[in-house]
Amino acid sequence: MPETMPLSLEQIFSLAYQAMRDHDADHDNSDALAQTVMTAERDGSVSHGLFRLPAYLKALSSGKANGKANPTITQPTSALVKCHGDNGFAPIVQRRAIPHLIAAAKDQGIAVLAMTHTHHMAALWPEVEALAEHNLAGFACVSYMPMVAPAGASKAFFGTNPIGFAWPRPGKDPLVFDMATAALAMGEVQVAAREGHSVPLGTGLDADGKPTTDPAQIANGGVLLPFGGYKGSAIAMMVELLAGGLIGESFSYEAKARDNGDGGPPQGGQFILALNPEKLAGPGWQDHCEAFFEKLTSLDGTRLPGERRYRNRQDKGPRHINKALIDTIAGEMKDPAAILG
Amino acid sequence: MPETMPLSLEQIFSLAYQAMRDHDADHDNSDALAQTVMTAERDGSVSHGLFRLPAYLKALSSGKANGKANPTITQPTSALVKCHGDNGFAPIVQRRAIPHLIAAAKDQGIAVLAMTHTHHMAALWPEVEALAEHNLAGFACVSYMPMVAPAGASKAFFGTNPIGFAWPRPGKDPLVFDMATAALAMGEVQVAAREGHSVPLGTGLDADGKPTTDPAQIANGGVLLPFGGYKGSAIAMMVELLAGGLIGESFSYEAKARDNGDGGPPQGGQFILALNPEKLAGPGWQDHCEAFFEKLTSLDGTRLPGERRYRNRQDKGPRHINKALIDTIAGEMKDPAAILG
Repeated sequence: MPETMPLSLEQIFSLAYQAMRDHDADHDNSDALAQTVMTAERDGSVSHGLFRLPAYLKALSSGKANGKANPTITQPTSALVKCHGDNGFAPIVQRRAIPHLIAAAKDQGIAVLAMTHTHHMAALWPEVEALAEHNLAGFACVSYMPMVAPAGASKAFFGTNPIGFAWPRPGKDPLVFDMATAALAMGEVQVAAREGHSVPLGTGLDADGKPTTDPAQIANGGVLLPFGGYKGSAIAMMVELLAGGLIGESFSYEAKARDNGDGGPPQGGQFILALNPEKLAGPGWQDHCEAFFEKLTSLDGTRLPGERRYRNRQDKGPRHINKALIDTIAGEMKDPAAILG
Repeated sequence: MPETMPLSLEQIFSLAYQAMRDHDADHDNSDALAQTVMTAERDGSVSHGLFRLPAYLKALSSGKANGKANPTITQPTSALVKCHGDNGFAPIVQRRAIPHLIAAAKDQGIAVLAMTHTHHMAALWPEVEALAEHNLAGFACVSYMPMVAPAGASKAFFGTNPIGFAWPRPGKDPLVFDMATAALAMGEVQVAAREGHSVPLGTGLDADGKPTTDPAQIANGGVLLPFGGYKGSAIAMMVELLAGGLIGESFSYEAKARDNGDGGPPQGGQFILALNPEKLAGPGWQDHCEAFFEKLTSLDGTRLPGERRYRNRQDKGPRHINKALIDTIAGEMKDPAAILG
């Protein structure tokens, strides 16, 4: 087991916030990103927590991403919100734009948020969960850099292209799933490689296009595969079209072609859909859907996605963070001891 | 090989149309359904063609479905179209409602059609292809009767819950996929059973909850599995929520509880989303996306979904229809010889 160090949630937030500030990000941008990093660690989404921070910092250092982004919002129609991200990281863009998406969906029954000129490297559950907390269903997707071979091919073309979905359960934690359309997220493959675990066959191919269970061989020169064969591949393609072609932003292959290679998140877009059951189904939708969840969870062997995250969230104690990772982050900061002690 | 009989596309249409009329359906309802059956046979979607007709006729005979349905459309907001199907089959409901969905999406950039009180037993590609022909992206889903065990369970709870997606390619056939979130559609399993083929392991479980490659064991007392394990299971659950809870219609388990067991399609709903790239991305989206398709198809081993259907469509000749199926349909008609000769 790699060496770890306990950090409180406050320390995790402060570490991310101060590291951003030390890289010339302003308060709002730093606060939004640090919140995203902290909530990922809080919920046990370790591959989207502090693990991502060095890459964010690289994108600030190289000038690829804007730590003082001031996203601008337009609403061309009652159901369509566009947000130009001013080259900032996704959390600041979402913080500014999602309230407009919520208002539009409350009013129209359905609304879409097209985010462009942003840098996304986080989980999707925070944004769809935010919609569900306002009694809206949410669907979000994002493409990335080519890492996944389309079904039948052996060369990377799709991103890991995650999709997130949330369903509101007033008075309860929303139902949320957030999953790569790759057999495994590259973040999970990287964590497995770092921690010396193997991955299931079908996760990816090595540099020669051969199946492998070694995450390092997939992460270094190999390629991931879509989940579920050609069906998962079709969904990965749909994500390229929704988060790219539909909103006038990069496909994964374009993001790579334009990227400066600093290791940080490439520039791209995000598609977020909000749906209002109160307008579509009308009153009584809550009880109708709760009966569905009750039936589903009464089947032996089932559980609702997201439950593990909510359990982790109950734990207010410290999180055990990889020591080498903390050292890397500390090396990027002016006064890490002020936070780490 | 089972015995077949060649029927022209005109004969296929007429057979379906007249069989509907002989079961007291009116012209519009018969015409819409026969068009759906004919286009399925035309495109080689045999599990959604004449194969489904006996079940449609059973639903008319039992009085479960309304062959004289007059669907009513309301538009509570600029982006939301609701259609009460008057208990008709989906094709008549779509024929009436989709023009309103198209107009709303052209205007608002995004719009949703919530279809309720209808009976769906067809493929989804016709409705999303219709959107793409108007330069809109389309997403549709429908639930059905419990046939699929959620990941981890061994009892049927989800329907085969297909999703369909189309992307417009002006001047070319749209990109369209239409797939069950089950590992295989029950229609395909039934065709395999009828024709004596086996199915891949992972398609389903037998009556004892054991994996099997015998389609008859899955179709008779067994259960299908979702594609792609727990990820496909999450998507199947999303379909239940979109085509059921969101629009105030049945979940699969409710459709079954309410069904009269006549073998015809149960009453339920459908969710159809239309997205307008001209409003979201703005001018130039076509070339941007065509470059993506060109890159994708230049990879060894890839092909675009839907290509096989478009190739089949070029064939204007007769289709070779299972003779036993024709006999079954003819037995339900007043004067089948007028069409079959």
